[in-house]
Amino acid sequence: MVNILHRVGVEAAPAEIYTALTTPEGLAGWWASDTRGKGSDIGGLLQFRFVAGGFDMKVVELTPGEHVRWEVIEGPAEWIGTHIDWKITRADTYTVVLFEHEGWREPVEFMYHCSTKWATFLLSMKSLVETGKGAPDPHDVKIDDWN
Amino acid sequence: MVNILHRVGVEAAPAEIYTALTTPEGLAGWWASDTRGKGSDIGGLLQFRFVAGGFDMKVVELTPGEHVRWEVIEGPAEWIGTHIDWKITRADTYTVVLFEHEGWREPVEFMYHCSTKWATFLLSMKSLVETGKGAPDPHDVKIDDWN
Repeated sequence: MVNILHRVGVEAAPAEIYTALTTPEGLAGWWASDTRGKGSDIGGLLQFRFVAGGFDMKVVELTPGEHVRWEVIEGPAEWIGTHIDWKITRADTYTVVLFEHEGWREPVEFMYHCSTKWATFLLSMKSLVETGKGAPDPHDVKIDDWN
Repeated sequence: MVNILHRVGVEAAPAEIYTALTTPEGLAGWWASDTRGKGSDIGGLLQFRFVAGGFDMKVVELTPGEHVRWEVIEGPAEWIGTHIDWKITRADTYTVVLFEHEGWREPVEFMYHCSTKWATFLLSMKSLVETGKGAPDPHDVKIDDWN
């Protein structure tokens, strides 16, 4: 098993980041403009639709202001059964977000792409929370021929 | 051992990316403005100096237009002995760069930071080659309280 790891620091309170990760409005503001479902209850289903496809996630762990964890239940074959994990901690003037996309079976080329793409979306989330404006799909940063 | 993986697609010829990875001028245009040394010979030493510290790399593999590999010989303790690997391949109108920072002993929090930071520098390299303008240190994208 191999994992994608990222860290961003956001100049905002943990609760604001938690909102960006658990509400359809928040998620639509930095990841997929077409986000539906319920992210604020354990067992809730979140549906993300992109120009190039989509993902369904089940919310499997939630601690307000501290932790969010999803299981991928629909999407590209490489993603199904993997987990997306968000840990939020306060450090001086920043709130630090530790991100993991865990449980890839193999480090396939698509994983390299997703690693870079996740970085751009985490910076989109940071921008949304700090300035009110993110860069969600379809206005996301294009990184390669896979978008 | 754990690895950082990234993928970017650059609208340019492989030789242009190879130049950005093997010349002090190229490296200074997207990574560290203060870059010295020789990146175009196996065994060459490259010295990168940042606001927050620096790295020395030894060039250990080179295939023009295809492959560049460095070994970290000075820098933060977590980096020493790790390898930075660049594979360049042509795909349609893009040249694809597969990046690995290989051989981290543990997935420490600094690795999460470096993963996100590498993504921003790879996009800086893409921008340099495509437009002539990158975002090297000290004008780099700030991602968190570690810079």
